Amino acid sequence: MKKHNFSAGPCILPQEVFEKSAQAILNFNNSGLSILEISHRSKDFVAVMDEARELVLELLDLKGKGYQALFLQGGASLEFLMIPYNLMKENGKAAYLDSGTWASGAIKQAKSFGETVVVASSKDENYSYIPKNYEIPSDADYFHCTSNNTIFGTQIKSFPQTDIPVVCDMSSDIFSRVLDFSKFDIIYAGAQKNMGPAGTTLVVVKEEILGKSGRTIPNMLDYQQHIAKESMYNTPPVFAVYTSLLTLQWLKNLGGVPAIEKLNNEKAALLYNEIDRNPLFKGVAATEDRSNMNVTFVLNNPEHQETFDKMWKEANISGINGHRSVGGYRASIYNAMPIESIQVLVDVMKKLEENV
Amino acid sequence: MKKHNFSAGPCILPQEVFEKSAQAILNFNNSGLSILEISHRSKDFVAVMDEARELVLELLDLKGKGYQALFLQGGASLEFLMIPYNLMKENGKAAYLDSGTWASGAIKQAKSFGETVVVASSKDENYSYIPKNYEIPSDADYFHCTSNNTIFGTQIKSFPQTDIPVVCDMSSDIFSRVLDFSKFDIIYAGAQKNMGPAGTTLVVVKEEILGKSGRTIPNMLDYQQHIAKESMYNTPPVFAVYTSLLTLQWLKNLGGVPAIEKLNNEKAALLYNEIDRNPLFKGVAATEDRSNMNVTFVLNNPEHQETFDKMWKEANISGINGHRSVGGYRASIYNAMPIESIQVLVDVMKKLEENV
Repeated sequence: MKKHNFSAGPCILPQEVFEKSAQAILNFNNSGLSILEISHRSKDFVAVMDEARELVLELLDLKGKGYQALFLQGGASLEFLMIPYNLMKENGKAAYLDSGTWASGAIKQAKSFGETVVVASSKDENYSYIPKNYEIPSDADYFHCTSNNTIFGTQIKSFPQTDIPVVCDMSSDIFSRVLDFSKFDIIYAGAQKNMGPAGTTLVVVKEEILGKSGRTIPNMLDYQQHIAKESMYNTPPVFAVYTSLLTLQWLKNLGGVPAIEKLNNEKAALLYNEIDRNPLFKGVAATEDRSNMNVTFVLNNPEHQETFDKMWKEANISGINGHRSVGGYRASIYNAMPIESIQVLVDVMKKLEENV
Repeated sequence: MKKHNFSAGPCILPQEVFEKSAQAILNFNNSGLSILEISHRSKDFVAVMDEARELVLELLDLKGKGYQALFLQGGASLEFLMIPYNLMKENGKAAYLDSGTWASGAIKQAKSFGETVVVASSKDENYSYIPKNYEIPSDADYFHCTSNNTIFGTQIKSFPQTDIPVVCDMSSDIFSRVLDFSKFDIIYAGAQKNMGPAGTTLVVVKEEILGKSGRTIPNMLDYQQHIAKESMYNTPPVFAVYTSLLTLQWLKNLGGVPAIEKLNNEKAALLYNEIDRNPLFKGVAATEDRSNMNVTFVLNNPEHQETFDKMWKEANISGINGHRSVGGYRASIYNAMPIESIQVLVDVMKKLEENV
């Protein structure tokens, strides 16, 4: 019996992606070889990398707009370092929005490079809302924000206007909703939510903003080097890239980002409506900032916890314990999560209400 | 019909590893979940990481000797940067042996940090031999060498004596032969030869040498940070680590490094003997420095190339074209390569001799 996997990441991917990637480990493209044993320079894998990079731009509606897609390693945490290395000028400064734990980690790295202005922070209320109405200094080298805060369940619904380059960590909501992605100069995302397995990091970068920091950048941290080598500066994480391609193909076949956004809205509404309706529960995040990817909620009466935990486990639900810094529950309902699994959770919540 | 895969890397892994990892993608540990969708903080994956780290130390006979094993990302190329960051003092210096393309890449990164002494180089003869009888400055912060040169087919058989810390890039021959690994202070290796699929990098480090460079090291590049977080500073490449564990378990069941060394010696002897015996071929690397992992050879008469290429392709052999900087042929015969596949290649070489 398949579990209903609400894990925050690594997380559920489409079932067909599991099946196709398992098959490719046994026999990739009918080559008689495993995807794990082929050269990254082989014709078959170069085609995978090229298609994956193209498909990212296509799905984000960024084709022909001066962007490059890269599949790197090291997770968003390495990007925290690469962003200031590539964009912050010597004696320059950067502007960051502090909307959660990961935003805060990015700020910490930037500070070791130079002046880092925190334009606003919601730390005062345990990051339960997205700061708004802040000013972005027009003389900063770039503005950095985090579109979705996995731990706290908040999501930026409206991005600020600014004339300086905008960098966005979209690790936990990329490919989940329609945005004007051309408003961003760098978008990056660890694969392990909406794009593929852990082990690769997507970086989408507008080429014209690079090469201006005046810093000597180590090759492995230099976006221009990775672009010049077509995302194969060194051996890429072959399997993670291939499985990301399978996931991107699945998304395209489904109708792309507009189609998944519609489904994601329905899925989120189903769960938030129950949280708001059911007197036993309440949401954690400010209503207007609620994430459509990570739904954080708590029981109003902690005495119900034992019963509720028993009930959802019996319903074959996994991965909904909240992060230690928030407590309660977190249901991560990424692109690949079927609405049927969310219905199972909602039914358990209703049943709890009937039983207590 | 299974191919005989002589690819230089990513390369052949044991067939049982392909089968087990494909199964784990469909249902990991009978959990009803894919290895690709479980949290890296789940009990099941923490156990994988812990066992993999332990098994590395066990197989290298480094248990209880002050070492830590880490599974990082970014390949050996990111280690080229991390090594000087962690070990080269401000205004200090490092000593490097230049034995090939990758050694040269490591040197280039070190030079951007500080004084980098190249103790010897075989570049003058296209890296066809391992330099010997060089002096290592006793006041350098560390000595760096590359144990096996994948592209050129050379391998260090005897490591130099020195009192300074020794760092070795063992990407292409780790776990292939018995060495006194406690003579090394840092050993690192991209997984994609003898350990697993591309996407993780093994770093084995003697803890006591860390924390002495006096540099401010970005968290993601700081070995001490990764050790403190038990190799989970951020989301690790879950699948690559799991598949590496399967490969390490396979090696242990086979009898560990001493057992595989014996097999590797037999495999290499079979191929080198034919190269030396067959008047149509000659080896590229200096005889005393021949690699037991990557066997480089050329045809004495280029006119036989077309026939030979046709013959090995018909025999279902793949991946033996030489690297562009050497030409000719390169048969990579890593741990997982069965001797039967090498016999197929040797038979083709004999058949060419009969036919021309």
